[in-house]
Amino acid sequence: MVAVEVRPSRLKAPSELGDLFTDDRYERVSRALGKAYRDVVRGFRGEFENPPDLVATPGDESEVEAVLSWCEAEGAAVIPFGGGTSVVGGVEGRLGERPFVSLDLRRLDRVLEVDGGSLAARIQAGATGPVLEEQLRGHGLTLRHFPQSFEFSTLGGWIATRAGGHFATLHTHVDDLVESVRAITPRGTWESRRLPGSGAGPSPDRALIGSEGILGVVTEAWMRVRPRPEFKASCGVEFGDFLAGARAVREIAQSGLYPANCRLLDALEAETTGAGDGERSLLVLGFESAHGPVGAAMSQAVAIAREHGGEPGEIRESAPGAATPPMGRKPRHISGNRPVDGEGTGGAVETWRNAFLFAPYLRDTFVACGVLSETFETAITWDRFEALHATAIEAARRKVAEVSGASADGPGSPRVSCRFTHVYPDGPAPYFTVMAPAVRGGEVEQWDEVKAAVSEALLEAGGTITHHHAVGRDHRPWYDRQRPDPFAAALRAAKAELDPSGILNPGVLIDP
Amino acid sequence: MVAVEVRPSRLKAPSELGDLFTDDRYERVSRALGKAYRDVVRGFRGEFENPPDLVATPGDESEVEAVLSWCEAEGAAVIPFGGGTSVVGGVEGRLGERPFVSLDLRRLDRVLEVDGGSLAARIQAGATGPVLEEQLRGHGLTLRHFPQSFEFSTLGGWIATRAGGHFATLHTHVDDLVESVRAITPRGTWESRRLPGSGAGPSPDRALIGSEGILGVVTEAWMRVRPRPEFKASCGVEFGDFLAGARAVREIAQSGLYPANCRLLDALEAETTGAGDGERSLLVLGFESAHGPVGAAMSQAVAIAREHGGEPGEIRESAPGAATPPMGRKPRHISGNRPVDGEGTGGAVETWRNAFLFAPYLRDTFVACGVLSETFETAITWDRFEALHATAIEAARRKVAEVSGASADGPGSPRVSCRFTHVYPDGPAPYFTVMAPAVRGGEVEQWDEVKAAVSEALLEAGGTITHHHAVGRDHRPWYDRQRPDPFAAALRAAKAELDPSGILNPGVLIDP
Repeated sequence: MVAVEVRPSRLKAPSELGDLFTDDRYERVSRALGKAYRDVVRGFRGEFENPPDLVATPGDESEVEAVLSWCEAEGAAVIPFGGGTSVVGGVEGRLGERPFVSLDLRRLDRVLEVDGGSLAARIQAGATGPVLEEQLRGHGLTLRHFPQSFEFSTLGGWIATRAGGHFATLHTHVDDLVESVRAITPRGTWESRRLPGSGAGPSPDRALIGSEGILGVVTEAWMRVRPRPEFKASCGVEFGDFLAGARAVREIAQSGLYPANCRLLDALEAETTGAGDGERSLLVLGFESAHGPVGAAMSQAVAIAREHGGEPGEIRESAPGAATPPMGRKPRHISGNRPVDGEGTGGAVETWRNAFLFAPYLRDTFVACGVLSETFETAITWDRFEALHATAIEAARRKVAEVSGASADGPGSPRVSCRFTHVYPDGPAPYFTVMAPAVRGGEVEQWDEVKAAVSEALLEAGGTITHHHAVGRDHRPWYDRQRPDPFAAALRAAKAELDPSGILNPGVLIDP
Repeated sequence: MVAVEVRPSRLKAPSELGDLFTDDRYERVSRALGKAYRDVVRGFRGEFENPPDLVATPGDESEVEAVLSWCEAEGAAVIPFGGGTSVVGGVEGRLGERPFVSLDLRRLDRVLEVDGGSLAARIQAGATGPVLEEQLRGHGLTLRHFPQSFEFSTLGGWIATRAGGHFATLHTHVDDLVESVRAITPRGTWESRRLPGSGAGPSPDRALIGSEGILGVVTEAWMRVRPRPEFKASCGVEFGDFLAGARAVREIAQSGLYPANCRLLDALEAETTGAGDGERSLLVLGFESAHGPVGAAMSQAVAIAREHGGEPGEIRESAPGAATPPMGRKPRHISGNRPVDGEGTGGAVETWRNAFLFAPYLRDTFVACGVLSETFETAITWDRFEALHATAIEAARRKVAEVSGASADGPGSPRVSCRFTHVYPDGPAPYFTVMAPAVRGGEVEQWDEVKAAVSEALLEAGGTITHHHAVGRDHRPWYDRQRPDPFAAALRAAKAELDPSGILNPGVLIDP
């Protein structure tokens, strides 16, 4: 049993605001960390260095405004918590002496309006994936945005961090699903019109999407939803050579076919997730539609894969009224409403899918077992992909070996695998998973060194420091080099205008 | 013959900068106006109230920087000219006593690099449509961005104004085609990384796209290009009822089929363009692909149209190697490189297409003939479309009748027609064309009143003041009400930071 010492709250909850704030120890501690490996390690150790001084759980927008006003008056910072699943230090207030409040919108979790004709729904920002899907289900609709954190993360968090979702092609980020956004800033309400498209100045929505809480607190959004897909097809395609698989994916991504699933796992990743034999890469292909059969599109994609040496397994199709094929086992402790029904089409595809859902839970076990595990994700144009892939893997292996004292190649050597989470006509979003023996007691430092080495490699090779995990605090050194300087200056000026006291999530994205 | 009096230049071209600047009368006058109806009228009259004092034609980025530095030192403003096709007062310096320079990047018109594997090309901002397509053609590639202004407008202008293009669905605006942008600001170079996707903070590209020259001068961009389409299908579908056609379009837009062409013309619009009998609406459907046959997708779309009462004409298909079907006549004086080959598939579709290409030329003739003609375009979600459609048409008819003294319904009454230029799952982008007898000598005032009345109606009904014509100066009163106030404050702060002397296109989008 680890004794948890928690810094006393440096703020006194204002009695005139009722139970809007709490300094309850559990509430504070449970919002002190995100879900990065370094967070989980510290949590296991009972190290909560930066607990919020208060937690605020507003029940409406006027209470959000009250929180901002009170904090501004007190000189306290406000960190929107979302679902607390940040893996980049986005919810941890590393603010030194400055007190701060963790803002949790979990009480704002309703689907307020549904416009079935326009396929749009007005949803409060505190709704988690399962909660909003459950409400949409009654209308026969779905947002179909399933990040790995789906069970816990919230709509507001997705918008604030440009979360990546279910669709491997086309509508990859939540960005494309946003019809309009409403946010509370210290200088008033920011609400855009509901518009299917516009050319009136730079998009106000795109300025908020990805702002990680530094400009305002997203309270609700009109989101583009869709009927639940009834026609589906899936297929696993094996490749002897990962780079041949990558070439097949490139051609599929450029074909205009837009598969919903198009994830290429290298041999190691396929093996780790139980979907492969460790010798062959696996391409997981899926198509879906609410409107009509997708078998023809799947056949075209499979034909492309075959031209690049791929060996396809059986194509599994489902359609309305057809018997649902036997499903793979659903991870039992994942509750919520992720619509696995009809999704499971068996075989390697299903095996990988279950491993994907399990992974965040496994990580906690890895920490307990002394396994360092971390992921790095980026995006890069095709012309530079192979070089990035080689240098990122090499950087990870070398650094892990160096800090763990193990050989880079021998027994106990690090496992570095790669998959594509999303793909575009102009390039893939590669996702690297590193597993290695942890240095007991030095896990955080080990992680920091590996993180820095791989991040450096990704940036040097021309990639983005993050395709969908956000910047937060952990990615800052590389983000600062990646973004255009005048854009940083513009963002800083915009923040100073809307948040002159600098209360909103200080330290993510920019410094004052 | 109209005598043209031009205000003498208030700036003296700096001799140390060679021929970077000119005060040549023709060069100045030809950049004094855009291409709105009110511009054409004033041009016919020889009224050039706001000619630039100098015209600058830099040959490289260092010369762009020199122009900005010199103007900042002189207290002069800089208005990027693009191709001069603004219909919203975007290139006209209504700056009172403040002198200004028109910045024309026409010398920067090269495709600098092509990355065929990633389907991307680095293109200079001054390249017009035909000039960049001609260069891409050598690589078997195309940008396939064809705004009506294609022949004259430039890549930089498209990016600065969020131009709408060829594709009626999916990639409707140039926004989606931008992989990275490079711009010169008074405080340094703004260049984003080439990335197929990213989640690193708010998109820096989206902040520049639509900024209408107030933050910086776009000098080049990596653009997503594609192979030239070889498989095509087109079909015209007639509807007795425009609103039934709209419902068919809605379902097609929500089907995931993504037709390249999906333009619904009401009966009047179809008649005006010679594509219809004046009784029936026409839906112009088209699919295209560089990769495979599109007949099946067309059949599905046509089946949807049929369910809504549409009567399809013949489906015309073309494929590689097949004989090209007889083409409609290409408007002879439209030179350039708009790829009509293989595009023409005859019939009503082709007739409408030619009318579309001709329209900007016809407008000049209309002015000479005393016909007021103007267009209004917006976007709106489906739930509010019918109401917007009714009120916009009513507002146009009433106001035209009022200012022209004609009856709203009798002979010589205004013709107000509607078509959809682009459609989305959540709503259409309706485009209204107004034609009426002009009030000789009072055309500008007449236009201003009609513009105001219809703009008011569009805004009141929930639409955007512009879907793809930009804001410029003419749309400002409505844009100011449409955009979120905190966003305007943020934009103003960003501009003040990057352009502290306020030299860049003052008066569009925001006031200092």
